[in-house]
Amino acid sequence: MQQIIMRPIGKICSPYKESSNIPIQGTFNSEVDAYVELEEKYAGGLKNLDEFSHAIILYYFHRSQREGIVGRPFLEQNEHGIFAIRSPHRPNHIGLSVVRIKNIEANRMYFTEVDVLDQTPVLDIKPYVKYFDYRQDVKCGWLDKHFKDGDIPDATILK
Amino acid sequence: MQQIIMRPIGKICSPYKESSNIPIQGTFNSEVDAYVELEEKYAGGLKNLDEFSHAIILYYFHRSQREGIVGRPFLEQNEHGIFAIRSPHRPNHIGLSVVRIKNIEANRMYFTEVDVLDQTPVLDIKPYVKYFDYRQDVKCGWLDKHFKDGDIPDATILK
Repeated sequence: MQQIIMRPIGKICSPYKESSNIPIQGTFNSEVDAYVELEEKYAGGLKNLDEFSHAIILYYFHRSQREGIVGRPFLEQNEHGIFAIRSPHRPNHIGLSVVRIKNIEANRMYFTEVDVLDQTPVLDIKPYVKYFDYRQDVKCGWLDKHFKDGDIPDATILK
Repeated sequence: MQQIIMRPIGKICSPYKESSNIPIQGTFNSEVDAYVELEEKYAGGLKNLDEFSHAIILYYFHRSQREGIVGRPFLEQNEHGIFAIRSPHRPNHIGLSVVRIKNIEANRMYFTEVDVLDQTPVLDIKPYVKYFDYRQDVKCGWLDKHFKDGDIPDATILK
């Protein structure tokens, strides 16, 4: 398989117009609201999603103009493999965020725990299922030292 | 943005050659081993991923020939919106699995907790980061009744 053609199913409407002040992950700033606006033909795909508390949004990092094999994450200066960090500058440029669903109206899913730029193209929405997606005894490599003792590092919100 | 062109970065080598006997999610059969074989140029992207216990693999449901707005999940006969279930027959056909990393050798990531067919094209690997990806107080809609009291339903392994 040489290439795969995808089409955005909608876009994210978020207050973050630029990458300054955006949290590196949505849990670090849960007061901000946003929504996914799907193309109208996909509205029926949201049926019963309002019975879930959280969703996984997959989206396209449309602002990234490059693709690295390694990269430096925001939290430190060390270089890691691109598959060991969450950088946008990755092969295929797919982003993943777990968000808290607020409500669903027609073709819109309103949510909080936002870390995505306005107008980001959406590729998929999946229900967050604790029976599938939650793991215990998790080791998080280079990240653990930044979050030890339950701390949230300052650098989780971009300046 | 009308279309997005992606290219597989590698493939999954798994003992599941057909969709019979495959668990609907990998946590329900953790004894089975598999690996991702990346194209050699991406081997450096795995640097430091072996310090994580789990990874998220994004892949392409290459066997799906259709795309629904609603669907019936394996666990029940009720119809739900495609974005409220994890069916392969979804817009853009992107699959997501959380797997347990065993070890990494050159361009291969060996893992357990497998629920993916052999030769599935891989789009991305991300580190599973509990600080980003874990949520408490999660409601799982139509799934909760199937897993109440900690039960794992029989239908989590396809016959």
